[in-house]
Amino acid sequence: MSPRPASNPQSVLAIIGDGQMGLLMANILAGKGCRVRLWGHDASDIGRLSPSRQSERLPGFTLHGQVELTADDAAIFEGDCGLVVNAVPTQFIRGVWRRIGEGFNGRAPIVSVSKGIENDTLLRPTQIIAEILRHAPGRAAVPMCVLSGPTIGSELARSLPATMVAASESQSLAKDIQSLFCTDWLRIYTNDDPLGVELAGATKNVIAIAAGMVDGLGVGCNAKSALLARGLAEIARLGVAMGARLDTFFGVAGVGDLATTCFSSEGRNRSCGESLGRGVPLQTVIDSSSSVIEGVATTRSVKSLAQRHNVDMPITAAVHAILFEGLHPHSAIRELMIRERKPERVG
Amino acid sequence: MSPRPASNPQSVLAIIGDGQMGLLMANILAGKGCRVRLWGHDASDIGRLSPSRQSERLPGFTLHGQVELTADDAAIFEGDCGLVVNAVPTQFIRGVWRRIGEGFNGRAPIVSVSKGIENDTLLRPTQIIAEILRHAPGRAAVPMCVLSGPTIGSELARSLPATMVAASESQSLAKDIQSLFCTDWLRIYTNDDPLGVELAGATKNVIAIAAGMVDGLGVGCNAKSALLARGLAEIARLGVAMGARLDTFFGVAGVGDLATTCFSSEGRNRSCGESLGRGVPLQTVIDSSSSVIEGVATTRSVKSLAQRHNVDMPITAAVHAILFEGLHPHSAIRELMIRERKPERVG
Repeated sequence: MSPRPASNPQSVLAIIGDGQMGLLMANILAGKGCRVRLWGHDASDIGRLSPSRQSERLPGFTLHGQVELTADDAAIFEGDCGLVVNAVPTQFIRGVWRRIGEGFNGRAPIVSVSKGIENDTLLRPTQIIAEILRHAPGRAAVPMCVLSGPTIGSELARSLPATMVAASESQSLAKDIQSLFCTDWLRIYTNDDPLGVELAGATKNVIAIAAGMVDGLGVGCNAKSALLARGLAEIARLGVAMGARLDTFFGVAGVGDLATTCFSSEGRNRSCGESLGRGVPLQTVIDSSSSVIEGVATTRSVKSLAQRHNVDMPITAAVHAILFEGLHPHSAIRELMIRERKPERVG
Repeated sequence: MSPRPASNPQSVLAIIGDGQMGLLMANILAGKGCRVRLWGHDASDIGRLSPSRQSERLPGFTLHGQVELTADDAAIFEGDCGLVVNAVPTQFIRGVWRRIGEGFNGRAPIVSVSKGIENDTLLRPTQIIAEILRHAPGRAAVPMCVLSGPTIGSELARSLPATMVAASESQSLAKDIQSLFCTDWLRIYTNDDPLGVELAGATKNVIAIAAGMVDGLGVGCNAKSALLARGLAEIARLGVAMGARLDTFFGVAGVGDLATTCFSSEGRNRSCGESLGRGVPLQTVIDSSSSVIEGVATTRSVKSLAQRHNVDMPITAAVHAILFEGLHPHSAIRELMIRERKPERVG
């Protein structure tokens, strides 16, 4: 039904966003001989990236020499665009697609690797893009795919083995994306629950902030693992309430991504939580990061989603209280541990 | 139905085993004012522990001064025994209970914290004990409870926050155990799936050996997290095939214990895998460990259970091939990554 991505070897695969995932996806596709064009919102960033092929956002990474670079909103979709990869931090997707959406042909499949939920609208990345594109005249629904998994950027940059899940309502599109992105070090599974995969990728960042706080407080791996399990249970409860499949949360893009985000020393959300646990103010943490810490804004959205769907999410509520309501991490961990004794409930 | 554990303040709570968990459980109960007696199979170990209150198996730990110690098979159950804690490495449970079982009153509930599956018989710890006690004349079925969770010993020794699950077919017993063992740093959930909890605690050690190999090979956190997710899926598949509840594997005693075992630098099974990944021979690893590495023997049992129940367990098969069939860890990881592309299946 949907056009095969990049079926024409001359077609352009457009990567939107020059953060870690945009750079990495560009390299994978260029490495397979595809014609890749990468767009960044800041002309001076793109100006530096073009000759150096290096980015401060991903130390040690070298951008493939054949990747075209542009910061020109009108240029990104020029030519025969065969695929779009959305790799924009969630809270900026609306603004970016308002800038560039006009030139999009409306036919090429869109693969989103963004992990978050928009504040106020509570929309997922693919929903935000769909909403913007719907407003353009004469557009049919664009085929979309979510690509997500445990993907700490610095490890992908070194081609260390990893897995992702390609989730779409169209299984033929999911299979095409599987074929297009898989390499001998990146294994990709298909999945037909894009809602669950996208939600898992967003919500795990909230739990990772809590996991980082556990690290910052120095209370150990047992507590962090319990928090991972209880966090998984609460994000799965939310997912099921929203119509996602429970088992998505127990797969590579669910518990797998949650585990790497909670345990890798390089996870941005975990590191943010660790600094908070050590007493560093939130704004200082944000100001000192070269990349967007998705989980901070996502915490606001997930708390609202929990209220809307009437789901009990005590860890999310605690992270929200620490980030935005002045609760001390130590008090929060204590409150989570001394909640009334009861049977364990999962899902 | 079952007698309340330790309802008489003079009754003896008997801890069988002087490994990490035996020592830790003894301290929790003694710290609550219970009369605790700890049995170890080796008189010289007990002879050293008695005056020093220190054990090489748990550096930094000090045994509570009121814990009685014995290596006398006839003495452990002397007096009014109100509760037994089984903390013996799985492959030794049969031998130990053959030695001490004669003196057991047959009424006190038995709480097992052992994590493994017996070779050849493929029985879980509580099943082994039940089988031995059945052979004693005139014995009714003994009430049993499984107590399990993410419990790296060195962290419990420092009273860092942790969680466990008390699982029993008798919910009143599970609640009694919850009350008896909970402290202000140890939160305990009840659960009615002892089969699932006991199986999760055993099988996670096999996955942890694989996780350690990933560490030893230096292939990163993304690969280890994917392995955790795929490992969780395969042990959950086995559990469901054996009659356990799926959601038990996604709770604190399932994914929580799996996570801490795979990620804590102090996990014995993970450390064993890491050494193997670095090329150290298995026997050398075993000889240099002061404690039993449960996962090694358990791997044999889990592979047999997978065959018996016709469950696909590729990670377990790979660990078995590395431990006992001469496969190199690097080849195994490679084989796991390049299996045919397909949809993800969980549970």
